[in-house]
Amino acid sequence: MPGLQVFPVPGLPEITPGADLAEMIVAAASAAGTPLASGDVVIITSKIVSKAEGRTVELADVDVSPFARQYAEKWEKDPAVIEIVLREARRVVRQVGPVLITETHHGFVCANSGVDQSSSGAHGRAVLLPEDPDASARGYRDAFRAAGLDIAVIVSDTFGRPWREAQTDIAIGIAGMNPVYSYIGQVDPHGHEFRVQVLCHADELAGAAELVKGNISRVPVAVIRGHQWEPDEDATMKLVLRESERDLFR
Amino acid sequence: MPGLQVFPVPGLPEITPGADLAEMIVAAASAAGTPLASGDVVIITSKIVSKAEGRTVELADVDVSPFARQYAEKWEKDPAVIEIVLREARRVVRQVGPVLITETHHGFVCANSGVDQSSSGAHGRAVLLPEDPDASARGYRDAFRAAGLDIAVIVSDTFGRPWREAQTDIAIGIAGMNPVYSYIGQVDPHGHEFRVQVLCHADELAGAAELVKGNISRVPVAVIRGHQWEPDEDATMKLVLRESERDLFR
Repeated sequence: MPGLQVFPVPGLPEITPGADLAEMIVAAASAAGTPLASGDVVIITSKIVSKAEGRTVELADVDVSPFARQYAEKWEKDPAVIEIVLREARRVVRQVGPVLITETHHGFVCANSGVDQSSSGAHGRAVLLPEDPDASARGYRDAFRAAGLDIAVIVSDTFGRPWREAQTDIAIGIAGMNPVYSYIGQVDPHGHEFRVQVLCHADELAGAAELVKGNISRVPVAVIRGHQWEPDEDATMKLVLRESERDLFR
Repeated sequence: MPGLQVFPVPGLPEITPGADLAEMIVAAASAAGTPLASGDVVIITSKIVSKAEGRTVELADVDVSPFARQYAEKWEKDPAVIEIVLREARRVVRQVGPVLITETHHGFVCANSGVDQSSSGAHGRAVLLPEDPDASARGYRDAFRAAGLDIAVIVSDTFGRPWREAQTDIAIGIAGMNPVYSYIGQVDPHGHEFRVQVLCHADELAGAAELVKGNISRVPVAVIRGHQWEPDEDATMKLVLRESERDLFR
C-alpha cells in the first residue's frame, strides 16, 4: 500500500512526573504489534508531556490576583485557573465575555493559554503547556535515537481557530524534521508560481494523528509511517509562529 | 495494521469542463492497484472540481472596475484577477498592502477569495472556487453510490490562517459524513467535561490527504481508509463556518 499509515499507540499507563515517555512509547508500540521504525513520525499529545515534566499546578496553592478573581466570579470560572491562565500569557489577545484568548510566553495564540483542567489526573489540578515543547520533542527524539531509531517527533495540542467552528490538533513542538514544506520558486507546467508556497506539514501530521487518537479513547500517542520528512536537526515550531507585526488578526 | 491508510490517486488526466470526475477517480484508483472501497473517504482538490464544473474565467474577457484597477496597479497585480477576486467576495475582511483577505459568497474567509491563477490549465485564465462545494461533494458521493460504493467525499482547498505561518489543506465541501466529532457532555475519568468539545475531522482529513497529494506532484485526489465516519446525508461545511457575529477576529 503506497502513501501513509496512521496508527495509535494504545496501552500507555497514566503518566506521572519523571515518566520516561520515550521508553514507554517504544514498549507500548511493540506490545501493540506495531513496533516503531526509523523514518516514523511520532506525535505525542502535549498533556502527557506536561504530566511527565511535572507541568501541573494544584489550584488550592494559587494566590489569585484581584483582576483574575473579579473576572472569574463574573463568568463563573475557577479563579485559580484564571490566575494560572494569566500567568502563562504574555498578552491577552481577546477577552470578550467568558472567552479569553491569550498569547502564551511561547508565542502561541490560543484559548486560556492552553491551560487544561480536564484529564489532569486529579481534581483541583491544572495542566500547563510544556515550558519548551521543541526541547521536549528533541529529548524524545534523542531517546529514540539512543534506542537505534531515527524518528521525527511532534508534540501536539488541540487549538481553536478564527473563522471556523470546532478545533483541530496542531503542532506546538517538533524535532528532527522541517515543520514546513516550501514550493517557493517552483512553477507549475504553465509557468505560474504556485499560489500555495509553504505548507505546514507539521500541523497536517498532528491533525492526522488526532483522527486515530481521539480524546475520549485517551490514546495520547500516534505514529505516522511513510511520510518523507525533510531532516532538520534545528527544527522548531517558532518558524511557524507569525510575528505580531506581520499578523493582521491580532 | 490498525488505524488509517492515506494514499494518493495518481494518473488522472488534465481535467476539462464536463469531465466525469467520479468515474475517472474510480478508474484511476483501480489502475493504481488501490481500488476504492465502501467506507473510504475520498478527498478531492477543489481546483479539479472547479475545472470539471467550468468555474474558470478568461482574464482577457474581464471588465475591470476602477477600484480593482488602481489597487492592482499599485501592487503590481493583474487587474483582471483582482476584479474577479472582488466579484467572488461578499466582503473584504482585510486589505493591507498587497494582502487581500476576503469573505467569499460561501462564507469562507481566505486570501483572494480562493481565486487561483496557478495550474489553471492555460495562461491568462483564473480558477474560481466551486459555486457550491457541498453540492459538488454530494454529486460525487451519489456517483460513487451508483457504482456500488458508500464513500464520504471532501472537497479541499489550501488556506492560510491567522497567527501561524504556512498553509494547510482544509475542507470546503463535504458529503455523507458529519464534518465534526463532538465530545459535548462527555466527561473524563475525573468528572471534568472535556475542554476539547468539538473536533473538525473534515479539516484533519483534508490536511492528512495533502500529505500524500502534494501540490507539486499534481496528484489532486487522495483516499483515507479506516476512518470511522459518522454518516450524515445532510452534511455541510456551513456547520463549520463561524458567523461574523460570533467571530472575534473578523
